Amino acid sequence: MASFQKLTPRATDYSKWYNELVVKADLAEQSAVRGCMVIKPYGYAIWETIQAELDRRFKEKGVKNAYFPLLIPKSFLSREAEHVEGFAKECAVVTHHRLMNDPEGKGVVVDPNARLEEELIIRPTSETIIWSTYKNWISSYRDLPILCNQWCNVMRWEMRTRLFLRTAEFLWQEGHTAHATKEEAENFAATMLDVYADFAEKVMAIPVVKGVKSPNERFAGALNTYSIEAMMQDGKALQAGTSHFLGQNFAKSFDVQFLTNENKYEYVWATSWGVSTRLMGALIMTHSDDNGLVLPPNLAPIQVVIVPIFKKQDQLDALMEKLNPLADQLKQLGIRVQVDASDKTTPGFKFAEYELKGVPLRLAMGGRDLENGTIELARRDTMTKETVSFDNIVETIQNLLKEIQDNIYQKALDFRLANTREVNTWEEFKEEIKKPGFLLCHWDGTPETEEKIKAETKATIRCIPFEGDKTPGQCIYTGKPSTQRVIFAIAY
Amino acid sequence: MASFQKLTPRATDYSKWYNELVVKADLAEQSAVRGCMVIKPYGYAIWETIQAELDRRFKEKGVKNAYFPLLIPKSFLSREAEHVEGFAKECAVVTHHRLMNDPEGKGVVVDPNARLEEELIIRPTSETIIWSTYKNWISSYRDLPILCNQWCNVMRWEMRTRLFLRTAEFLWQEGHTAHATKEEAENFAATMLDVYADFAEKVMAIPVVKGVKSPNERFAGALNTYSIEAMMQDGKALQAGTSHFLGQNFAKSFDVQFLTNENKYEYVWATSWGVSTRLMGALIMTHSDDNGLVLPPNLAPIQVVIVPIFKKQDQLDALMEKLNPLADQLKQLGIRVQVDASDKTTPGFKFAEYELKGVPLRLAMGGRDLENGTIELARRDTMTKETVSFDNIVETIQNLLKEIQDNIYQKALDFRLANTREVNTWEEFKEEIKKPGFLLCHWDGTPETEEKIKAETKATIRCIPFEGDKTPGQCIYTGKPSTQRVIFAIAY
Repeated sequence: MASFQKLTPRATDYSKWYNELVVKADLAEQSAVRGCMVIKPYGYAIWETIQAELDRRFKEKGVKNAYFPLLIPKSFLSREAEHVEGFAKECAVVTHHRLMNDPEGKGVVVDPNARLEEELIIRPTSETIIWSTYKNWISSYRDLPILCNQWCNVMRWEMRTRLFLRTAEFLWQEGHTAHATKEEAENFAATMLDVYADFAEKVMAIPVVKGVKSPNERFAGALNTYSIEAMMQDGKALQAGTSHFLGQNFAKSFDVQFLTNENKYEYVWATSWGVSTRLMGALIMTHSDDNGLVLPPNLAPIQVVIVPIFKKQDQLDALMEKLNPLADQLKQLGIRVQVDASDKTTPGFKFAEYELKGVPLRLAMGGRDLENGTIELARRDTMTKETVSFDNIVETIQNLLKEIQDNIYQKALDFRLANTREVNTWEEFKEEIKKPGFLLCHWDGTPETEEKIKAETKATIRCIPFEGDKTPGQCIYTGKPSTQRVIFAIAY
Repeated sequence: MASFQKLTPRATDYSKWYNELVVKADLAEQSAVRGCMVIKPYGYAIWETIQAELDRRFKEKGVKNAYFPLLIPKSFLSREAEHVEGFAKECAVVTHHRLMNDPEGKGVVVDPNARLEEELIIRPTSETIIWSTYKNWISSYRDLPILCNQWCNVMRWEMRTRLFLRTAEFLWQEGHTAHATKEEAENFAATMLDVYADFAEKVMAIPVVKGVKSPNERFAGALNTYSIEAMMQDGKALQAGTSHFLGQNFAKSFDVQFLTNENKYEYVWATSWGVSTRLMGALIMTHSDDNGLVLPPNLAPIQVVIVPIFKKQDQLDALMEKLNPLADQLKQLGIRVQVDASDKTTPGFKFAEYELKGVPLRLAMGGRDLENGTIELARRDTMTKETVSFDNIVETIQNLLKEIQDNIYQKALDFRLANTREVNTWEEFKEEIKKPGFLLCHWDGTPETEEKIKAETKATIRCIPFEGDKTPGQCIYTGKPSTQRVIFAIAY
């Protein structure tokens, strides 16, 4: 059950507000295992909707789900040189396959005789094991393209963890595709970025900037990484999804060639793309407020909650005669509705709980409403209440759910636009980066300059945006020529 | 792409037939990691339907999904004495959290400085980590019941593995519930067994026997294990799902008490229940034949395949004018249909492929059919073909899909009944157990007798069935009194 001690306000301590909200809204909590979280039923219900919406979109693009092993032989990680640098270091290593009773009688200990010949790594990402598999699946151009995705857990041994944002174990999907041509692979990577952007904006109500990563921020082993970047309420950037054009790197590492229709052997072209439970963090930090979670209706496990206000059973019965048919009607329209007629807690307690949990619309009806043919409607996004006619209530609800979805998207977009500014000099940059937001700046295109800027300010290039002003200029740091402005920000 | 070398017939080598079928029908294959499988897209599509059907049934019972950590502290496993004996021994042990570049330049090696203080075990099942979590969730009777499920991967270090049937890593769901009373927990365990049985029979078309396990076959840590047992085509038993009444064992191990509504502290009552990708093995071995997979329509990723027979483009165009609207109509009815108009392979090759993959209904239409207003229908279950009128074809298909579903269930049930026999003496038992099937025998109820019978014949008690003859008798082995017949069989 949710706890109703007030949340620390965002203005007081944004980070503390976030940590408290995740736990109090019953989304997730720390587990007994360092850095690994428990995703609680309410949080998981949101994740399930995210999964269902994405999965449907993937399948529309011809992607099929599959499952590849959790464990990766250590030697596989060394095959792709950049990949091992990026991922293999901080990871969970399985060295033994058996425990035995402690000879001293204290529980169980590792059996020293059960050491593995080669250590196994819990997947931090699956390019290596998947390309070792694709080698067996691909021999001719007829076998291409392969468009696979898997929903699974992965593990990266992070030292500083935060629920959803950075955890040792997290859930994600990873798509891995194999193509006959470079162009097809590049297009597919771009297509999946569009899928992510569309999903983020339409379902999560999170406005995103699509762009390409600078070399410093590229996925280890990729030729190009595309990303969608979102701005959180504290003005920091959060990378909400990435899609990688991997070139022929993994095909070469695992010797995956195919016979073209001109009877020549060529290496296969690859993409990979993923989003994770990190999206839950983005969701929370984009919309929520000091009263708790604010959920877009398209993702809310409960879209509408109906609370009858009563003292005695006959009052409840009279109210339910109106409210039960309403709930049924809403369910038939595919609206996720819950009626809370419990007498264990007060209406005030219920209201606070549904506010904390971000239920978009709350309906309350008491004796006077019944007499007047009215019902009280409370919107979570604006925290406004109004008493409306019970006639047409279904239509009112349908319209309001759409309106709330649009409103929180627009609010987030307005916030991003208001906190995005052009910066033209290094002096200005050093001041502006201390304030929240995205800085649009010219950059000379070199990793060295990005490194220096990061070292001095902690800001990184979030992406080189696809859209927007393409006027050339001069790098804020070196004064060298720049082809277009890029987004600098402090990032999660 | 599937390979069309003929399968080894079941009569020649059942085990070889199974192994070949799994690979050739594109269901799964061995990975580069010992004992871990790759579930290929076609196999995974079947698993997704299994998941969706079960998940819906769980939610109807009030169960909510959640996610608990992959890794379990070693010490947790020692808390429940039987549990550690049953599970902790053969498991993947994580001992380190970092790799480093090999000082000798050969790839990467384990960093000896990154040894974990306490080793972590990849979950073989999650009772311990979940009950350590429930401790924080439960304080009063108001917090009960908790009905959680998770879909995840688990790992048991099996020495002899077979695709789907016994793999080191497998996918499953594990439900874990917490209740205020013994009766409620026992009832819930029984309810979930009913859910499994209903699903197995209605969706998978696998007839099952519901019953309780003998103490020898009980889950490590349970007071009672209920199971559904199915008979494979070779007469062996396969446990298709289990539901455990765990009593207060895990609540006591992790000190999970609650305040009753009479203001007393009591330990919480528990159940757990699971089915796994092993069901894929049961599915294959219940229905399939020497031509390949036979799928029940309710689980088939493709329920109907439509193949136009043509030589030239104009012939194809004429056929598609009829077939495209048919496919659309079927889709609108929720039927999973695929039109295969590719000219890369011959119709004969296509027919063999869809047979191998177990597509329940195949429709083929050529020029003569077009003239006559007919279409050819081929049933996978009976391998029969007939030419029928194109009018009413939608209704014909709907009826046939139902008929196929019923037919393969009935066929499997008839097979089980024909191969289940009462055995009354030890001499008879030793002969009969050499033949395929279930033996209904009296047993004196002691683990010792079961052990001796197993040692002499490899047969085990699959379950003490809930339904059927309850006449008392005398144990086939000891002659001691027995309350009812139990099922002995050789098991997978």
